[in-house]
Amino acid sequence: MRNSTRSQVDAFIVMDVMEAARRAEASGRHIIHMEVGQPGTAAPAGARSALARAMDEDAMGYTVALGLPALRARIARLYGEWYNVDLSPGRVIVTPGSSGAFILAFTALFDAGDRVGIGSPGYPSYRQILRALDLVPVEIETAAENRLQPVAGDLGGQDLSGLLVASPANPTGTMLNRGAMTDLIEAAGAQGASFISDEIYHGIEYEAKAVSALEITDECYVINSFSKYFSMTGWRVGWMVVPEDHVRVIERLAQNLFICPSHASQVAALAAMDCGAELEANMAVYRSNRALMLEGLPKAGFERIAPPDGAFYVYADVSHLTDDSRAFAAEILEKAGVAVTPGLDFDPRRGGGTIRFSYARATADIEEGLVRLGRFMAERGAR
Amino acid sequence: MRNSTRSQVDAFIVMDVMEAARRAEASGRHIIHMEVGQPGTAAPAGARSALARAMDEDAMGYTVALGLPALRARIARLYGEWYNVDLSPGRVIVTPGSSGAFILAFTALFDAGDRVGIGSPGYPSYRQILRALDLVPVEIETAAENRLQPVAGDLGGQDLSGLLVASPANPTGTMLNRGAMTDLIEAAGAQGASFISDEIYHGIEYEAKAVSALEITDECYVINSFSKYFSMTGWRVGWMVVPEDHVRVIERLAQNLFICPSHASQVAALAAMDCGAELEANMAVYRSNRALMLEGLPKAGFERIAPPDGAFYVYADVSHLTDDSRAFAAEILEKAGVAVTPGLDFDPRRGGGTIRFSYARATADIEEGLVRLGRFMAERGAR
Repeated sequence: MRNSTRSQVDAFIVMDVMEAARRAEASGRHIIHMEVGQPGTAAPAGARSALARAMDEDAMGYTVALGLPALRARIARLYGEWYNVDLSPGRVIVTPGSSGAFILAFTALFDAGDRVGIGSPGYPSYRQILRALDLVPVEIETAAENRLQPVAGDLGGQDLSGLLVASPANPTGTMLNRGAMTDLIEAAGAQGASFISDEIYHGIEYEAKAVSALEITDECYVINSFSKYFSMTGWRVGWMVVPEDHVRVIERLAQNLFICPSHASQVAALAAMDCGAELEANMAVYRSNRALMLEGLPKAGFERIAPPDGAFYVYADVSHLTDDSRAFAAEILEKAGVAVTPGLDFDPRRGGGTIRFSYARATADIEEGLVRLGRFMAERGAR
Repeated sequence: MRNSTRSQVDAFIVMDVMEAARRAEASGRHIIHMEVGQPGTAAPAGARSALARAMDEDAMGYTVALGLPALRARIARLYGEWYNVDLSPGRVIVTPGSSGAFILAFTALFDAGDRVGIGSPGYPSYRQILRALDLVPVEIETAAENRLQPVAGDLGGQDLSGLLVASPANPTGTMLNRGAMTDLIEAAGAQGASFISDEIYHGIEYEAKAVSALEITDECYVINSFSKYFSMTGWRVGWMVVPEDHVRVIERLAQNLFICPSHASQVAALAAMDCGAELEANMAVYRSNRALMLEGLPKAGFERIAPPDGAFYVYADVSHLTDDSRAFAAEILEKAGVAVTPGLDFDPRRGGGTIRFSYARATADIEEGLVRLGRFMAERGAR
């Protein structure tokens, strides 16, 4: 048996770091985890107790493919609360994580060979999922002066069937403001490209509220998830908002591709949406961590950073220190006991000169990590 | 925005029945559900209590992409218990339901345009998932004398890149014995077609133990799930066993396409595997129900049936009564208050003359359903 061509997707380079970190811990070392893109916190207590109750009361078989009606309605209400957008619950599709939403969106919109624009640096799975579905990821090389976000002018002559943007973005945490988002939507529309907005880090923002594409147009796919703000990564439940006339197509795809998202996760997610106090407590931690990072990283010797608008990452330019971020991350792990993500995962061309720090974990870890990074850089510079 | 060509998959026809049943129930009628392909029972109590404990003790973030090591090891052990097959845990991949396993298997093995053989009648999502992935489902029309299973001779001249079989099959419940399975594996291999065995109904068998393809060869993909025997449909957790040299490719695809299956569902699934007493109690119900169906359906006027070897379905030939199984199912629902599945979902060409009865629910429901079906057929014949 041989494997298909489309199955030859790249491994996550960070997995090597994680495996090395695991081995180090197994041998007794203490490692600070700044590589992992997920909260250290559990799902909100209210979500867990709602599920514990439901498990006693219901067989929890398949739900309908588009998700529990109560959850779809509650998500629609969130758009009123967060963006003052009046959204019909009928346009909300509950998905098996944002991962499931990408699979649905890409199959619903694109045929084999279609070209889909994505910003570089960006979430590595965008291009791998596109490849696995026989689509062509078109990497849009973003500029530092645009805070590593694509701009309308980048789309000229690209012959795109789709454009996927993320705001706040991973790995940079930078956002598209309303004007920039509007320009991108118009530029995509002008070349007949479907517009997909990844809004998975919404809710985790610091200076200004993130703009949803739904504030600007209904002619787009918006993808979100319970993983980040709602602290439910392992539950694999997310959602998507699509134009009214796309719902039926998505429903048929979802019935066949997934049957439904996990019933248990949907029950937990619904309750999580009313756990505001606990979620805001998580946010307070991210805010403290961010302040520590913005002060501590330059002091430690990582000066080439930009303050993130949202999410829980800092993307650092280390091209004056290395052209091999993979080796650099391995060195930081070995000598400082801090796990970080090599930029090559996010930007295959330029990422040899960047690394990503995550500050999603407890504040004490961030403090200790910064101390270790400072010591490492001082020793490195002294050589 | 327009939808892709590959997104134009068929709806499940049974959904119309389910929606009509829901409306009837909302208007106060009592409906017996013989359309639904899932147990009426919850996940085993031990599975639910294990999850309740884990939620208190662990943040339950992402697991590794291939699944919790303890679950992979326990599944490997099942192959010893059920088939006397010595299986390395490293070849077991935990998936988001068998649905997720199909997506992984099809992308790992096939490129756009490849032809994949499936038996007709068969599980409708096979052909829809294949289509959504730009693959070509090749319907192998099975014969009554082969108990509606494909046979090696059917493969000649088909130019297949893959062959997918199911034993016990949905909608028929018929199995492939070791000889028939061996012949199919050899015939597929002879034309270079990858062999995929859907074993989702294993454990639910009546006269003889179902044969796993892994008893015959390691050069195959085996797909299974916690949905049926383990009574965990809504939890969306399944597994796949692949050749050793395919694990790394699947791992990369799984990392990108799904990140991981639901952590909560994996914890519940692991505990479910040691809930033998409760699962065997479910089996006793299926066994009683099957006996009732095999006696009651012919008495009610559905004589053209074959005893199922496994699963919880009876597939009835009603071509002497109708050539429109969709209208016939609607009539049965309206007049008898029993929901059944039109054969058109499983066999687009011949399914106008067949219907599927499920006996997965409580025995009292089966008894009442058979009474209603008998009355309906008597009145119908009397007109």
